[in-house]
Amino acid sequence: MARQPTLEFWFEFASTYSYLAAMRIEGLAEAAGVGVRWRPFLLGPIFASQGWTSSPFNLYPAKGRHMWRDMAREAARLGLPPVQRPPDFPQNSLAAARAAAFGADQPWIGAFTRAVYEAQFARGESIAEPGSVAALLNRLGLDGPAIVKAATSEPHKSRLRVVGEEAKSRGIFGAPTFLTEDGELFWGNDRLEQALAWATGERPPGLR
Amino acid sequence: MARQPTLEFWFEFASTYSYLAAMRIEGLAEAAGVGVRWRPFLLGPIFASQGWTSSPFNLYPAKGRHMWRDMAREAARLGLPPVQRPPDFPQNSLAAARAAAFGADQPWIGAFTRAVYEAQFARGESIAEPGSVAALLNRLGLDGPAIVKAATSEPHKSRLRVVGEEAKSRGIFGAPTFLTEDGELFWGNDRLEQALAWATGERPPGLR
Repeated sequence: MARQPTLEFWFEFASTYSYLAAMRIEGLAEAAGVGVRWRPFLLGPIFASQGWTSSPFNLYPAKGRHMWRDMAREAARLGLPPVQRPPDFPQNSLAAARAAAFGADQPWIGAFTRAVYEAQFARGESIAEPGSVAALLNRLGLDGPAIVKAATSEPHKSRLRVVGEEAKSRGIFGAPTFLTEDGELFWGNDRLEQALAWATGERPPGLR
Repeated sequence: MARQPTLEFWFEFASTYSYLAAMRIEGLAEAAGVGVRWRPFLLGPIFASQGWTSSPFNLYPAKGRHMWRDMAREAARLGLPPVQRPPDFPQNSLAAARAAAFGADQPWIGAFTRAVYEAQFARGESIAEPGSVAALLNRLGLDGPAIVKAATSEPHKSRLRVVGEEAKSRGIFGAPTFLTEDGELFWGNDRLEQALAWATGERPPGLR
């Protein structure tokens, strides 16, 4: 049997379009015969290095208005529940990202990632507090407080900084981003299907 | 026979993704039974009001690198020639936009728009000089110099300023943008098919 190709899925918990990708990627990847490598990261430092002090959807109100409307349309089109806005946007995603980075190679990473996004964008709940993250882990039958505590201690605590440097060095500027094993970068939920096809060796005709 | 619905197509000649939409919209709209209203405009003043002094693809280099690679992939996927970069990016699109605004309701607007984009992104030519724009018009069997001259005289000359105010007031922040008769705004070439479906009365299931 041939080796299964892998696609890296770089996501930020505060990112709305990362939510759409997170809800879809496991099913689509399985159908395509592609493995998913979950790469939680923080977009804040990358945005800050571009001079942005908040989400571009807040900094540019017209862009933000379109995004929320587009999210409503996309959620309906993809069969997801109506989008709810969390109490603050963007949410502080540090606690969730730390737990996800701690569990990135664990069998529960997909379920946990979806649980965080559903709490935030399908139920409009805050995911900012470590206690909220622990509760979501508990509901998956895990020891939430233990995981949150471990994720906040060294050496795990500093992992997100290293991951952030990797993201920048590999050309990541937004989320979601999909990276194939040969380094092809696809940005945005709209490119998930293309990224999976690329991972299986498909190429657009005549592409140089 | 029922009245044919119309979709407004707001495009900026310097915009790469507007190029992809411009090459596709007439065929797709005809198949969907939708009329196209061509709305050339200048993105510069809108970007300037957001504090951007150039294209975001120049201001944010990682975003720019992805855009050019994505353009190569998208052009291949859509059956367009390999993308060429014009001598400067973004091109000064004032002369082309003035001619297009002058002819926005003329039968040649679609062919002219595609001719400008093909010169720029399929052949990598400059479109910045009024002479280049006149030459493209000539090749369509029109009197290029006369059109360029008329488009630069009052009252046509100031038309783009009025159009720019309209764009802002209707929530436009980028290009291409599609606006339906009921005011639904879709941003980006990736949303062209959805915008046309919306124009014909289709709605995502359960959309509030």
